[in-house]
Amino acid sequence: MQLRLGDIVDSLGGQLHGDRSLAIDGLAPLESAGPGQLSFLSNPKYQSQLAASRAGCVIVSPAMRDAALARGAAIVADDPYLYFARLTQLWKSRRPSAAAPAVHPSAVVDPEAVVDPTARIGPLCVVERGARIGAGTVLKSSVNVGEDCVIGDRCILHPGVVIGADGFGFAPREGEWEKIEQLGAVRIGNDVEIGANTCIDRGALADTVIEDGVKLDNLIQVGHNVRIGRHTAIAGCAGIAGSANIGAYCTVGGSAGIVGHLTIADHVHISAFTLVMRSILKPGHYTGVFPIDENSAWEKNAASLKQLHSLRDRVRALEKK
Amino acid sequence: MQLRLGDIVDSLGGQLHGDRSLAIDGLAPLESAGPGQLSFLSNPKYQSQLAASRAGCVIVSPAMRDAALARGAAIVADDPYLYFARLTQLWKSRRPSAAAPAVHPSAVVDPEAVVDPTARIGPLCVVERGARIGAGTVLKSSVNVGEDCVIGDRCILHPGVVIGADGFGFAPREGEWEKIEQLGAVRIGNDVEIGANTCIDRGALADTVIEDGVKLDNLIQVGHNVRIGRHTAIAGCAGIAGSANIGAYCTVGGSAGIVGHLTIADHVHISAFTLVMRSILKPGHYTGVFPIDENSAWEKNAASLKQLHSLRDRVRALEKK
Amino acid sequence: MQLRLGDIVDSLGGQLHGDRSLAIDGLAPLESAGPGQLSFLSNPKYQSQLAASRAGCVIVSPAMRDAALARGAAIVADDPYLYFARLTQLWKSRRPSAAAPAVHPSAVVDPEAVVDPTARIGPLCVVERGARIGAGTVLKSSVNVGEDCVIGDRCILHPGVVIGADGFGFAPREGEWEKIEQLGAVRIGNDVEIGANTCIDRGALADTVIEDGVKLDNLIQVGHNVRIGRHTAIAGCAGIAGSANIGAYCTVGGSAGIVGHLTIADHVHISAFTLVMRSILKPGHYTGVFPIDENSAWEKNAASLKQLHSLRDRVRALEKK
Repeated sequence: MQLRLGDIVDSLGGQLHGDRSLAIDGLAPLESAGPGQLSFLSNPKYQSQLAASRAGCVIVSPAMRDAALARGAAIVADDPYLYFARLTQLWKSRRPSAAAPAVHPSAVVDPEAVVDPTARIGPLCVVERGARIGAGTVLKSSVNVGEDCVIGDRCILHPGVVIGADGFGFAPREGEWEKIEQLGAVRIGNDVEIGANTCIDRGALADTVIEDGVKLDNLIQVGHNVRIGRHTAIAGCAGIAGSANIGAYCTVGGSAGIVGHLTIADHVHISAFTLVMRSILKPGHYTGVFPIDENSAWEKNAASLKQLHSLRDRVRALEKK
Repeated sequence: MQLRLGDIVDSLGGQLHGDRSLAIDGLAPLESAGPGQLSFLSNPKYQSQLAASRAGCVIVSPAMRDAALARGAAIVADDPYLYFARLTQLWKSRRPSAAAPAVHPSAVVDPEAVVDPTARIGPLCVVERGARIGAGTVLKSSVNVGEDCVIGDRCILHPGVVIGADGFGFAPREGEWEKIEQLGAVRIGNDVEIGANTCIDRGALADTVIEDGVKLDNLIQVGHNVRIGRHTAIAGCAGIAGSANIGAYCTVGGSAGIVGHLTIADHVHISAFTLVMRSILKPGHYTGVFPIDENSAWEKNAASLKQLHSLRDRVRALEKK
Repeated sequence: MQLRLGDIVDSLGGQLHGDRSLAIDGLAPLESAGPGQLSFLSNPKYQSQLAASRAGCVIVSPAMRDAALARGAAIVADDPYLYFARLTQLWKSRRPSAAAPAVHPSAVVDPEAVVDPTARIGPLCVVERGARIGAGTVLKSSVNVGEDCVIGDRCILHPGVVIGADGFGFAPREGEWEKIEQLGAVRIGNDVEIGANTCIDRGALADTVIEDGVKLDNLIQVGHNVRIGRHTAIAGCAGIAGSANIGAYCTVGGSAGIVGHLTIADHVHISAFTLVMRSILKPGHYTGVFPIDENSAWEKNAASLKQLHSLRDRVRALEKK
């Protein structure tokens, strides 16, 4: 498959400096791109790679225009990374696509589920009674959508996603656990993408809510009655406990955790591997990670850490003298 | 769907103060319940919500009886949360249920598996040779139960659960890994619930054992030859390494970890995000989490932490002076 | 099923001291093995269990030969643990096997996928267009292999594995996220084993690469464009962020994390629950875990930790006096 530079700027805009008829047969990073490939420079700190790149053409910002032209063809765009994203979409759209039936014959879709005719339900998916799948939404293979759960428009659910399993709710009874039936569902907005094997539990009474534009990576756990605000992105292996209320435009790093029943404001950024134990009401960047070290050094510092409170007392005693 | 207050107390007990014929069409939290809904107050700290609630009826403890009656109808029960749990069960049981065949035709059940006639095997499940599924047990969709694994009675396995994959066992051979075939199986007791995409590996020689009444949330990893004692509950994303022996009546928080080949006594409670590195032989509550902070403060403290052992030495030197 | 001791040494080598005709009907640990079972001693610290074991025969190293013969039959082998691994393989190979068709009829294999005739594709697997499955490779049930992904020879993919879901790639656009289509694939070498519900994402432009002999446990996330070097083993629930470059002969503990775009040298060992935040260029053993403690002690030390940087300043001030 090939695209000509002229076709690309006709589709995506940008100013082409170079031969419209040059055929491009792939996209590649600056350091590995060859003469038939198109690359991009979005981060100025990689500018040194630009001069050395063998790419047939590079996408650059206006500030990099002269440096790019010094080496060959270029497309100048205000936001080269966003331009690159759209170029991947253009590329994908031109690939010959497998003739995908709307609902794969191996999928198990309940007759009382409502699947938009423009949605695609992949092989071996299960869509239960009362579930609704919106326009243009794609369920890849082996996706499970439980009873009464609602998926909006233009969503992508990757293989193994489970929407609407029971939340983890039990009442203690003499040391044992009595099940609290989970009577709510899951409501997912538009333009949401959910990574492979990620789970979103149904609510206990009300619904679990994922707002428009949320992006969830693989193997994430979202507990019952959580709300995730619009355009928040969460990286792989994160765990969101029940009834957490996460704002809009947040990012949560990989393997981070959020304790239940707390609130996180809009525009909060949580580092990977960090546990949020209390509500965060102020936008900002928050972290709590034990720094990695050589094991022998870690052993000494970890042992000292278990005495830290008394060490502080000892310093206070010294100060009083 | 509706239930009358009289029907509810006839089924579940408790003292009704109010109109037996009042129709209830849903359950809801105190702050959002309307006149057609039933709510509950289990934690005295939410008592202030009671007076303001618009709920048609509230479930309260005897101590809250007068406060509840001051606002309207009430059911008085010794343990309102347990009463609420049973009410969710009653509610669920009255919902018109999809006519579920015992074994969904899309499931792949080996002829040498033994499935109790009262068990339900959902769509696209796999039950391998020699596996046994007990009475009243429900496998939701896309559950995998491997060869010779045994699931007790009244269990619930949510979508994507994998029981009996090979344990992670290899012998080193000149830097490479030689597979140790996993010859044991998994034995799961009665009344066990297992969350979506959770994995329980088969034992190397003997079996991995999950005792009666254990509750496992989503995306949990249970290694080979682990034992989990009865009525222990484990939250999402936790990882239990091979041959760990966990007692009864324990709780393990989300994303916690338990190193292999160690023992945890009964009635031990592990906080979320905590790694258990040594056996715990005394009941209690244990934690090990780096506290979250603003990123800039964290950076300073984390850097200091890498010098903590020498800081302790410096304090000791000062004390000697 | 039974094997005679003579058959075992004829197949696997080692020096048998004992009756060639003794029938063995199982393998078991030293402390639980009975007279019809075979056991092994690989770690000298368990030598005390040897004398007391009721095992019909034990596999020991030459150094343990005399101690073993004092109690009964023995097989002497240079590496008893490796011998045991091969014995489990022998045992498994002699079990009557279910007549497994090459491709289970419930699997959904695209006509444009290439499956080696000696590969086995289990029930309810999905193998998409352009994917290739090598000789002797086994896909257990419910495995998903995406478009154009390549799996080498003699690999084992456990239930629920997802190969080739889209990497988590988005370009920011006014606070929202624009999808970067993931145009690469996944390439997996020979002799790779991948645990249940583990996910390996396809590359953005180039491929995600898993080299020969890598062993991945359950519920691991491998991001796009990661490279994992040969014979590296990674334990359950670990998360490897995009474009991480992990060397050969490494081990990564359970629930560990590796931040994206960094390099880890060969022969690096990362402890469980440790986050690798920077490249590691020197072989060794690295750790970063908050030590577990009783919750009340943890609370005090965690509070002090948030003051650690200022504590260090106070010690410095004391030293100056």
